[in-house]
Amino acid sequence: MSARRLHLNVNLLHSGVYPSAWRLPASRPDAFMDVGHYVRVARIAERGKLDAIFLADTPSVSDRIDYRPFLSLEPTIVLASVAAATTHIGLIATASTTYNEPYNLARRFATLDHASGGRAGWNVVTTADAAASCNFGLASVLEHGARYERAREFVDIVHALWDSWEDDAFVGDKETGRFVDTTKVHPIRHRGAHYAVEGPLNVPRPPQGRPVTVQAGGSNDGRDLAAATADAVFTLSQTIADGVAYARDLRARAASLGRAPGSIVILPGLATVIGSTEAEARRRQDELWELVPLEYSLARLAGTLQIAPERLALDKPLPDPLPLPANANQTMFQGTVALARRDNLTVRELLRALGGGVGHRIVVGTPDAVADDIEAWFRAGAADGFNLMPDVLPEGLETFVDAVVPILQRRGLFRTAYAGSTLREHLGLDRPPSRNAQPGPESLSA
Amino acid sequence: MSARRLHLNVNLLHSGVYPSAWRLPASRPDAFMDVGHYVRVARIAERGKLDAIFLADTPSVSDRIDYRPFLSLEPTIVLASVAAATTHIGLIATASTTYNEPYNLARRFATLDHASGGRAGWNVVTTADAAASCNFGLASVLEHGARYERAREFVDIVHALWDSWEDDAFVGDKETGRFVDTTKVHPIRHRGAHYAVEGPLNVPRPPQGRPVTVQAGGSNDGRDLAAATADAVFTLSQTIADGVAYARDLRARAASLGRAPGSIVILPGLATVIGSTEAEARRRQDELWELVPLEYSLARLAGTLQIAPERLALDKPLPDPLPLPANANQTMFQGTVALARRDNLTVRELLRALGGGVGHRIVVGTPDAVADDIEAWFRAGAADGFNLMPDVLPEGLETFVDAVVPILQRRGLFRTAYAGSTLREHLGLDRPPSRNAQPGPESLSA
Repeated sequence: MSARRLHLNVNLLHSGVYPSAWRLPASRPDAFMDVGHYVRVARIAERGKLDAIFLADTPSVSDRIDYRPFLSLEPTIVLASVAAATTHIGLIATASTTYNEPYNLARRFATLDHASGGRAGWNVVTTADAAASCNFGLASVLEHGARYERAREFVDIVHALWDSWEDDAFVGDKETGRFVDTTKVHPIRHRGAHYAVEGPLNVPRPPQGRPVTVQAGGSNDGRDLAAATADAVFTLSQTIADGVAYARDLRARAASLGRAPGSIVILPGLATVIGSTEAEARRRQDELWELVPLEYSLARLAGTLQIAPERLALDKPLPDPLPLPANANQTMFQGTVALARRDNLTVRELLRALGGGVGHRIVVGTPDAVADDIEAWFRAGAADGFNLMPDVLPEGLETFVDAVVPILQRRGLFRTAYAGSTLREHLGLDRPPSRNAQPGPESLSA
Repeated sequence: MSARRLHLNVNLLHSGVYPSAWRLPASRPDAFMDVGHYVRVARIAERGKLDAIFLADTPSVSDRIDYRPFLSLEPTIVLASVAAATTHIGLIATASTTYNEPYNLARRFATLDHASGGRAGWNVVTTADAAASCNFGLASVLEHGARYERAREFVDIVHALWDSWEDDAFVGDKETGRFVDTTKVHPIRHRGAHYAVEGPLNVPRPPQGRPVTVQAGGSNDGRDLAAATADAVFTLSQTIADGVAYARDLRARAASLGRAPGSIVILPGLATVIGSTEAEARRRQDELWELVPLEYSLARLAGTLQIAPERLALDKPLPDPLPLPANANQTMFQGTVALARRDNLTVRELLRALGGGVGHRIVVGTPDAVADDIEAWFRAGAADGFNLMPDVLPEGLETFVDAVVPILQRRGLFRTAYAGSTLREHLGLDRPPSRNAQPGPESLSA
């Protein structure tokens, strides 16, 4: 058995995870809408031998755009352009099960997988955001349980469509004129509670069999969905203990469904602020924090908690009790509240700890300190790797690739070259057979 | 006033418009699912200074895949990859109003327009295909009028979303921290018979203001939709007289809606089979025709006419009368029947005239003959240019670009270099202002 290896994705959030990243001297404010920026970051990630770039998404104006860059360009289109300009880096796009049709989505990701030679991944979200529902004819957002019930059916349909062509259905024999062996192309005939989809997909089986399925929900429903369907999870954990508990819980759920507990790659978010000394890193963090308007940080925190900003007194702790609102992003809500309660923070201190809206755990320090942190989580079993969120892009990723990656490589934790060409190969995941694959003469005689 | 210039798109139909194109020695049977093939053809089109490449689409298995390549990869994803590998060629993707959400579609094309520096076009179709309806939970296809009624509302929403950001709404001022001037970003608050969409789009205004809108319907409803919303139309005409009558009708409809009659670029489909002599071209056509299985040609014709193949006797004319079926693709149906009746063809002769499933007008001959044909249609006002359908790709386009384009250039009919960088500029179309644009101090004092 080969040594367990670390996996690293980079969350390509426009100008960087700090809401103020766009204001630094080297940053280009319009990077969020410039595909060239995404290509540059992807090439740096590829130079660092990272597993994948990851694009978040929501189909609405999702943030205070008066203050900061936001989720804007449609991720699968961006990644198709990035695919043409790169060769190895994995390409994970977020897409909502609540606001897409399964046939269209299965087809778009299958196409991206063909276009990239097997590097596509789909991050499944159900989209808690109320503004999105109004862009799709709904008066209000579906409640959490209903969204996840639809999501489960949706993911199952997408997987069935990716399996609807057997791997050898395409023939293309010029002599006989036989183009496709239609006995190996199967309708899926899905009739469920929420969807009816006949199939088959009109795209031959993707190079990866199925593009990698990623799931980012930390709620009970989200964990069940991940345990049943995900190849990788993008989680939010603030401590090693949280991370270990999450991993144990998720692997137990997967095992209870008959899956190998190690078959899901667990990748918590990790924001990084790196300096050549501890003091330099701290100064960089201070600079980024001071450029975030307080009004923005407060509005963002109030949004996460789904309460009025007036209920937040800067020099007092969070209101107590603080019940979970029906339509909250549960992962974000719980992570934020846990952080505040653990260190008994005032709202002002919490805003700073959250980086003015970063949301995920932030590690601040030298390349060695960042590598130590990563190694500690990895060895404790709190993570199989990380979804990196550099403070500023591309600069923060460049520093990570040039200064932290070599340390991780020297320690034998991270690859020094890509061993394969597909995202599944990078992540150490098997290529799933089509559910329609027939045992042929070869397999019978094996 | 500058001289009227010809416009040429190439319909990038996998291995070429002939169903047998994939069987020629130089063809690669898997070209239909290889994005590299689309890139190669696009680069040849760009070398020939063509206006755009055009991708047809339907979200289903749309043809007899046992015999031939089919509409497979999702076009906007393919074009995003092509965008990264080209600099000038326009990029037109077909997408259905019946099986998409307007917010998602507006966003995907706006993203493609940003990613390509203003080269995106959307070919609006309503998708007559019955197999598609079963992939989206519908028991049967919506009837023609209902599809077009939804389409009109859909296109209006998409245009409104593209206008929801004024051109100067993005600020990005590092000093003040102002990122977007939100007074210049407008919800659309659409509440219609079929859709409710709040907006605004989460993508700043596309480089072209609005990506080019193309429409391909020849029916009465299709013409009304084109007259109201299209920048360009992809039509089917078999004779110059048909083409002139179509152009007159469409321009009159546009004028009655207050649009400049010349503001719509009319581009009939034109299949080309080119040889260095007339005899060589005929031999090439024979070779392509003989490689199409008769069973396939018959099934395809029966599908266009929506009748059972058994009703078609090879050596007799088409059944008469032959009423227009409710769910037919009207443009294809009428073009096919008109061709058969005009020359009093038997079914066998009709199949050959249709190229075994080409559907559009076929010109067979030397480069000079092809150029003469194009010039005659253009000068008669039957066309502003053509949607070229080379017999075989990339070979047939290469011949067109190397042999026919220089003739058209020498005759002063076609550009020798791109004058602009956007698809609107290639097509001679104005960049539309946002409907929300306010007259500023500059325009008041001008």
